[in-house]
Amino acid sequence: MEFIAGGVTAAKGFRAAGAEAGVKYRNRKDMAMLYSPVPCKAAGVFTSNVVKAAPVIWDREIVTQREGVHAVVVNSGIANACTGKTGYEYCRQTAAAAAAALGIPERSVLIGSTGVIGMQLPMDRITAGVGKLAASLASGAEAGHIAAQAIMTTDTKPKEAAVKLTVGGREAVVGGMCKGSGMIHPNMCTMLAYVTTDVNISAALLQEALSADVQDTFNMVSVDGDTSTNDTLLVLANGLAGNPEITEKNADYAAFCAALRAVNETLSRKIAGDGEGATALFETKIIHADTKENARKLARSVISSNLTKAAIFGHDANCGRIMCALGYAGVSFDPERVSLWLESAAGKLLVCRDGATVEYSEEEATKILSCPEVTALVDMQMGGFEATAWGCDLTFDYVRINADYRS
Amino acid sequence: MEFIAGGVTAAKGFRAAGAEAGVKYRNRKDMAMLYSPVPCKAAGVFTSNVVKAAPVIWDREIVTQREGVHAVVVNSGIANACTGKTGYEYCRQTAAAAAAALGIPERSVLIGSTGVIGMQLPMDRITAGVGKLAASLASGAEAGHIAAQAIMTTDTKPKEAAVKLTVGGREAVVGGMCKGSGMIHPNMCTMLAYVTTDVNISAALLQEALSADVQDTFNMVSVDGDTSTNDTLLVLANGLAGNPEITEKNADYAAFCAALRAVNETLSRKIAGDGEGATALFETKIIHADTKENARKLARSVISSNLTKAAIFGHDANCGRIMCALGYAGVSFDPERVSLWLESAAGKLLVCRDGATVEYSEEEATKILSCPEVTALVDMQMGGFEATAWGCDLTFDYVRINADYRS
Repeated sequence: MEFIAGGVTAAKGFRAAGAEAGVKYRNRKDMAMLYSPVPCKAAGVFTSNVVKAAPVIWDREIVTQREGVHAVVVNSGIANACTGKTGYEYCRQTAAAAAAALGIPERSVLIGSTGVIGMQLPMDRITAGVGKLAASLASGAEAGHIAAQAIMTTDTKPKEAAVKLTVGGREAVVGGMCKGSGMIHPNMCTMLAYVTTDVNISAALLQEALSADVQDTFNMVSVDGDTSTNDTLLVLANGLAGNPEITEKNADYAAFCAALRAVNETLSRKIAGDGEGATALFETKIIHADTKENARKLARSVISSNLTKAAIFGHDANCGRIMCALGYAGVSFDPERVSLWLESAAGKLLVCRDGATVEYSEEEATKILSCPEVTALVDMQMGGFEATAWGCDLTFDYVRINADYRS
Repeated sequence: MEFIAGGVTAAKGFRAAGAEAGVKYRNRKDMAMLYSPVPCKAAGVFTSNVVKAAPVIWDREIVTQREGVHAVVVNSGIANACTGKTGYEYCRQTAAAAAAALGIPERSVLIGSTGVIGMQLPMDRITAGVGKLAASLASGAEAGHIAAQAIMTTDTKPKEAAVKLTVGGREAVVGGMCKGSGMIHPNMCTMLAYVTTDVNISAALLQEALSADVQDTFNMVSVDGDTSTNDTLLVLANGLAGNPEITEKNADYAAFCAALRAVNETLSRKIAGDGEGATALFETKIIHADTKENARKLARSVISSNLTKAAIFGHDANCGRIMCALGYAGVSFDPERVSLWLESAAGKLLVCRDGATVEYSEEEATKILSCPEVTALVDMQMGGFEATAWGCDLTFDYVRINADYRS
């Protein structure tokens, strides 16, 4: 497996486009389309929020068909959440417009939306946008990059990743793009993420691989503790790599899972590092926990702590806040066995041993915490399980961005 | 029952003091003492954080004795958390110093600490402070007010409340003080709160009344989602009102519970309204939920949402964020039955009906949200239970305060 350039168009047979539809933003692309002329197997995971956006409800129905998927249409202006039956009907109309433009069935089109909650879509602009998108679909890295830009909201950078792998003796690719910066606390997956692959794999195994993968990738990300109404992660597999279909958990399945993990972990880190207002990616790695689930809970609790996040912004080695966040994670442990290191490109420093703060150089701690990627490494001394979670610091800009998001 | 002026010294037989001990702050009182010459029944609830500060461990032991408590000594410079066995020994030494100064047993002294986590107490200053406090103990409202000031950390105002009630034909008082502004997400009770009463009540019923009460008062407060290592709420009852001892759940018990509720709810609201950096108290009232516990979860989820809190700061009627926070509360409900009003001294406005945003005047919404106390009223249309939670807005000042708290 090897990382390569590109995103959703890196795998064979996928085309993409972005367009200025004026849904909410002016002078920027705010709609994207993804298209495979060859029908795809599809798998998806969706928000656990009880309040689900209309496109989440639509996509869940389509993904249940498991195959025959051709396209995804996304707008990044309006979330189409809290929009009732009208919102769902607008999803169907969007799919119908794409189906007409591309000559495919309406129920082969997936829909994604992100943006303001509680507003209805301007359907005239959406259908005009779908027309523009269908007319400008293209293969190649540039088209995928344009789509990745078009799905951004408060993101400051497009987020893409792709890897090359070998399955059944054939070369294949898994690539993806995602967006997400605020309202990020996935509890199935994150805001919007689309992964494409030319691997030939059964729809059942595609879904199983995806559901397992998100537990250690997108579900380990938090920017602000707010689980979105729109979280959607889709994987489309068109089989064009030509490998014998993966129908059991053999070496090819393992290779595919490793590639999926690499792409999703990379995208997850990009979301955390580009959290609203963030100046730093804040990673927490738990080692020697008693169970995998407890390792995950502990890691997520630390990167979700507002006080710890504010301390990271201030380059303050406030290990007490990290100990505190471990303590309320809902996991039972002996605080007097916990050791804690701060780590970054600038070095690694023990700040807490056996539950008590140790003497350390504040100057060195500040140096470590001034890097753009900072890790808290926590040794629980309880067992053999580990987990890593990704968040970011809490900054003035997070407040500024969210105090007037709608205006 | 009637609200009266005063706090921990409002009930008969309680004295208090505050002193400049120089534990961390300069030129301000940073230690407080509370003392009843008559031994008290004691009840307490403590943090659910696995990482418990040394004074929490000490107090739990003392409260288990249930009676014979005379004094509380608090410092507001250093939390004495993550301090290992030394931290616990320092609690004992503080109690020993108070015992010597007051001529009472060491194990009749409760200890409270709040401030920086991970530092050891400067015991010379603490014991000197205890001496000053014992020498300046006084009755009356002013002494209680000084104690309430001395326990503050990032609080901007002292927090006191007291009510007068009649039990067994005798006039009695329940009064209290508390501190808390950041690291506030109580999961047994909040940072430090001390309630005194002259009601004569059995220790068992005192504990039962307290444990029930906090479910609807301190446990319904959140400033930042961080459950502290030091949360402690103590009630001391010295019996000086002279009523026949309350030993069963009769009308006197109900009167005491109502008084305790009034004091604790008032203190809880004061903590939320004085949350770090806050410009507004943000209350969420859930009505017509299917169970009491679900009503509490929904209310807490909304007031804990960073995005909603930032919107309140921006006076932005972002009802989508409130719907979103209801949706991830861990409660099952039908979003299409939810209605939502925004309410304050400036008026009441329906913003969401049956799960979908309605047309409303943005101007009126902004006027309502510009008040210092703002309520989101949510009708779940599921059943007959309600709950109220209290939080505050998320502001630039919250980030500023917490990016450099230790320095």
